[in-house]
Amino acid sequence: MHEPAAFSHALRVYWEDTDAGGIVYYANYLKFFERARTEWLRAFGHGQQAMAEAEGAMFVVTDARIRYLHPARLDDTLRVTVQPVDIGRASMQIAQAVWRDTTVLCEGQIQIACVDRGTFRPLRIPTDILARLTE
Amino acid sequence: MHEPAAFSHALRVYWEDTDAGGIVYYANYLKFFERARTEWLRAFGHGQQAMAEAEGAMFVVTDARIRYLHPARLDDTLRVTVQPVDIGRASMQIAQAVWRDTTVLCEGQIQIACVDRGTFRPLRIPTDILARLTE
Amino acid sequence: MHEPAAFSHALRVYWEDTDAGGIVYYANYLKFFERARTEWLRAFGHGQQAMAEAEGAMFVVTDARIRYLHPARLDDTLRVTVQPVDIGRASMQIAQAVWRDTTVLCEGQIQIACVDRGTFRPLRIPTDILARLTE
Amino acid sequence: MHEPAAFSHALRVYWEDTDAGGIVYYANYLKFFERARTEWLRAFGHGQQAMAEAEGAMFVVTDARIRYLHPARLDDTLRVTVQPVDIGRASMQIAQAVWRDTTVLCEGQIQIACVDRGTFRPLRIPTDILARLTE
Repeated sequence: MHEPAAFSHALRVYWEDTDAGGIVYYANYLKFFERARTEWLRAFGHGQQAMAEAEGAMFVVTDARIRYLHPARLDDTLRVTVQPVDIGRASMQIAQAVWRDTTVLCEGQIQIACVDRGTFRPLRIPTDILARLTE
Repeated sequence: MHEPAAFSHALRVYWEDTDAGGIVYYANYLKFFERARTEWLRAFGHGQQAMAEAEGAMFVVTDARIRYLHPARLDDTLRVTVQPVDIGRASMQIAQAVWRDTTVLCEGQIQIACVDRGTFRPLRIPTDILARLTE
Repeated sequence: MHEPAAFSHALRVYWEDTDAGGIVYYANYLKFFERARTEWLRAFGHGQQAMAEAEGAMFVVTDARIRYLHPARLDDTLRVTVQPVDIGRASMQIAQAVWRDTTVLCEGQIQIACVDRGTFRPLRIPTDILARLTE
Repeated sequence: MHEPAAFSHALRVYWEDTDAGGIVYYANYLKFFERARTEWLRAFGHGQQAMAEAEGAMFVVTDARIRYLHPARLDDTLRVTVQPVDIGRASMQIAQAVWRDTTVLCEGQIQIACVDRGTFRPLRIPTDILARLTE
């Protein structure tokens, strides 16, 4: 589904991630997606704490679409992929998926905006980050 | 946006709900949505622990679409609405929103399926619950 | 165990609070404790967001001792009590408990310090709050 | 503080872990402690999902003491150590710490019991696990 080139982040399912249904709680896939996006940005040499301090800029999610296909369970090892679909000047769209082996458990389309960390008004993505994302 | 008849659940934003951006963490709106759906079902005389034990049935989210319009913050009092859009025999679609006063902060369209708690195969919604939901 | 005068905050156990063991996840009792402390401070007319903005002060937990006696479960209605044990100039000790009906499920002794929100250095508790806490 | 031999688990601080104070939320250190204990058990060839299924047994925390010394922040890389202090037939005491480089941010003493996953009554720790823990 995702091209081999998609960035991938591995994680383990712990007790904290599960609920009394015996499976990963549905909100927690958004945590998994964010961990992977954070590591993807970091792979471009980009830390978000540093961006907040240096640029006063922050990425926020403005829209999320999630499809839950199969449940993940305690002790599972998962891979979360990150595939940029569209990178604009102040926002981007990312396709993500949570995999167990070769099965997609959960898919997400995530819309992200760059905003001023104080006012939450739209900001251009800092130039050096944008350059790396689009090269 | 929602008709006055929509079910509404009030909640407070606590430290646990926020993140270092100073606002409610994006995954936590799914928690707020679920608390409201749970209280909405309870208002029909329906507890989910009881349903799991009596019927071996469980509601799971199969699809979620969330639009983040304005951030919620520590100490905010929020109202979360629940508006059924379509109730089928084994699934339902729910429109939800998080309000602060008269402002919608977050909107969700949530698709829910009734499944066997052991096999996660689709199940009909128990008859008495379905009757109350559709009357 | 707690005197009748202890402040009490009611809450419901939702899916988000439970884990695959079928019970409330152990870290989440600290969330319940904090919700109750927050409402206890609010009952003194004191909001923490306001305190952070007006005084640059923040309460942080420096020490916690928790005893887990009985598990809480999905759909339980719980009461969380707050009993100040010792109020100092820059810190306080609070006894807390989580109750289901007349059973104590979890007990906590929580040490809290007032700190500068920027430097995390100890600060005196703002005078008006201290006055209300000790009257 | 901990002997060099202590088991160590590395993790990153993500947005989900932080709160509006700009630091890791106090309950989340218990999540970090548990992730490390889970990986420590796994290093003995022991998965908890498997133990629940094969033995009907589950580890639960009965007592926790946590000292918060310095705050952790977004993007920090932390190490969480696990040092068994006392291993009994049905319970164990574990010393844990969260480190950033050579600084201890948080210390915990965690008491764990082995219980029947259905009744929550005390159970002996399965023999093969106990053997590995004490050898």
